Amino acid sequence: MESSIKSSKIDLDIYNLIEKMRKGDRRAVARLITKVENGGPEVSKQIIKEIYPETGKSFIIGITGSPGSGKSTLTNQIASEYLKKGLKISIIAVDPTSPFSGGALLGDRIRMKSNFTNKNLFIRSMANRGKLGGLAMATKEAIHIFDAYGSDIIIVETVGVGQSEIDIFKSAHTTLVIMPPGMGDEIQAIKAGITEITDIFVVNKMDRNEADKRVNELETMLDIAENIVVDQKNHNIRIIKSNKWRPPVIKTNAISGENVPELIELIESHREFSKTTGLKNKKLAYRYKHYVVDIIQYFQNKDIERLIFSNPKINEFIDQILSYKTGSDPYSISEMILELFSKRYFS
Amino acid sequence: MESSIKSSKIDLDIYNLIEKMRKGDRRAVARLITKVENGGPEVSKQIIKEIYPETGKSFIIGITGSPGSGKSTLTNQIASEYLKKGLKISIIAVDPTSPFSGGALLGDRIRMKSNFTNKNLFIRSMANRGKLGGLAMATKEAIHIFDAYGSDIIIVETVGVGQSEIDIFKSAHTTLVIMPPGMGDEIQAIKAGITEITDIFVVNKMDRNEADKRVNELETMLDIAENIVVDQKNHNIRIIKSNKWRPPVIKTNAISGENVPELIELIESHREFSKTTGLKNKKLAYRYKHYVVDIIQYFQNKDIERLIFSNPKINEFIDQILSYKTGSDPYSISEMILELFSKRYFS
Repeated sequence: MESSIKSSKIDLDIYNLIEKMRKGDRRAVARLITKVENGGPEVSKQIIKEIYPETGKSFIIGITGSPGSGKSTLTNQIASEYLKKGLKISIIAVDPTSPFSGGALLGDRIRMKSNFTNKNLFIRSMANRGKLGGLAMATKEAIHIFDAYGSDIIIVETVGVGQSEIDIFKSAHTTLVIMPPGMGDEIQAIKAGITEITDIFVVNKMDRNEADKRVNELETMLDIAENIVVDQKNHNIRIIKSNKWRPPVIKTNAISGENVPELIELIESHREFSKTTGLKNKKLAYRYKHYVVDIIQYFQNKDIERLIFSNPKINEFIDQILSYKTGSDPYSISEMILELFSKRYFS
Repeated sequence: MESSIKSSKIDLDIYNLIEKMRKGDRRAVARLITKVENGGPEVSKQIIKEIYPETGKSFIIGITGSPGSGKSTLTNQIASEYLKKGLKISIIAVDPTSPFSGGALLGDRIRMKSNFTNKNLFIRSMANRGKLGGLAMATKEAIHIFDAYGSDIIIVETVGVGQSEIDIFKSAHTTLVIMPPGMGDEIQAIKAGITEITDIFVVNKMDRNEADKRVNELETMLDIAENIVVDQKNHNIRIIKSNKWRPPVIKTNAISGENVPELIELIESHREFSKTTGLKNKKLAYRYKHYVVDIIQYFQNKDIERLIFSNPKINEFIDQILSYKTGSDPYSISEMILELFSKRYFS
């Protein structure tokens, strides 16, 4: 059985879009991302194979936070600061809760109208990709497209702190977690998984009374975290954090822009830290391990579906399951199917 | 590399729980389901292998509908009717939107207090199982446990009509879709995927004016659906539906109980229809094909993660990716990894 991961030629349509993107055509960029969103890894594969040597140059900033945190406004401010420096910025706004697909701008991007006509800025929203590889994978691929397009900075902004957001942030060089002041119970959620991926904590709406309280809470949490012994055998992001970057906590006001230049300085110092300590390469290696896992799992899963639903021999196994005899349970039969087909499976 | 799907001995703890369940111990049933929820397929495998020959006897009813439809009250009524006949009923209330794990009763189950102390009734809520195989798989396994426990009827109730609900309903013999009257736009959502899995449409809250309007809408939709040519090559549930069961549409009042006995009659006639036409076996075969796909994918995905994260050779491949050379993109490298490891992979 031919595995579906095997090479296929690039579609002429896709190749033409990439050629246009290379000449700076913004619409071609948008259409390539739509292809990644709708076409799944079979389509992404063609794009990534072609553009990959042109990637690896962008600096990727991840921004997350709860809906009330002012995250989008702050993203706007950060983008504006970088735009002032003459850099080319791309923003990917990821919304895993929305059932609608990307292509258009997010509603709340209307706020960004001041930046909207800037040709150094590209904003793209991404929502569900359904079963075709998932949103985290589509986001990774959109990042590669913006990277090949020549973005100096790619900002990936997402709501919430669920598993899919954590997956998305494995792609970032520097990750910011934005919090509103004075919601103590949120700290719990943050402890649960986001600390490992956070490089800078931002307490937004600093004009509010409880901002300092939140800063103190975070600092205390970080004090405790620093005393946790990291399991070096564990191949997860915590190993990376043992490199002794303590996430700074900064207060900002996204509306007035107060402390935004200071935040940019922190981002830049983390960027420098990552480069000089080798953290950047460790993160990259980690990221690509996950990407490879995603890719292999996707195509294997497809192959398994094909195997089960198109091979007439499978019906005998299913009949065996339906006999309800000892040893004919779905787990035992799955083992048998694997054993029988595994040898020829990838050939 | 040893594949993780391979047999492992049953834990004594699990075996003892199964023995207790065989003697009718309700707490053992609850604990087995908790094990399935928290332990993932590695644990479920042991349970299913042991109990499988004792399953296949329950009649499984799937009930879904939007939150305002009165679905839970109707589930209660249906359970009551069957309890009157002296049957043993189990209810699994699946809530994919809740971040909290099962074990306890759902809040709205307080309404069921009239049935609560009945020892022929078992109610269990199930929520997210996270990454360990997913909720749909855990639900399938809970169904097998209730089946082995000797339930005559298992009712699987879930909110919404998303992909995960559709996956869950692949396990039901007879699926009811409950709708409130007069919300015309819902029909759209229903068209999108739920029609294929619906055996009986229930318009609840029949005392309301718009109930008849909704019934008419549904009948019109079904008229149109009957004229759709089914692609026989397509291995999905639509093939099953071509067996010419037209879902009846019935009005009920879940609070007063009006038309509930008539609904039970419809359920029973669908049950009979399924048996005599062979639809039941076709559905079963389809269900177990999906279950086998779930199982194989789960263990394969685990094996792939292990392969990528624990094999030191992988680091060379990752270094190659980080060279950003042509042909060193993640897709090409994934192909190479698969090619190299596939032969030894399952041995």
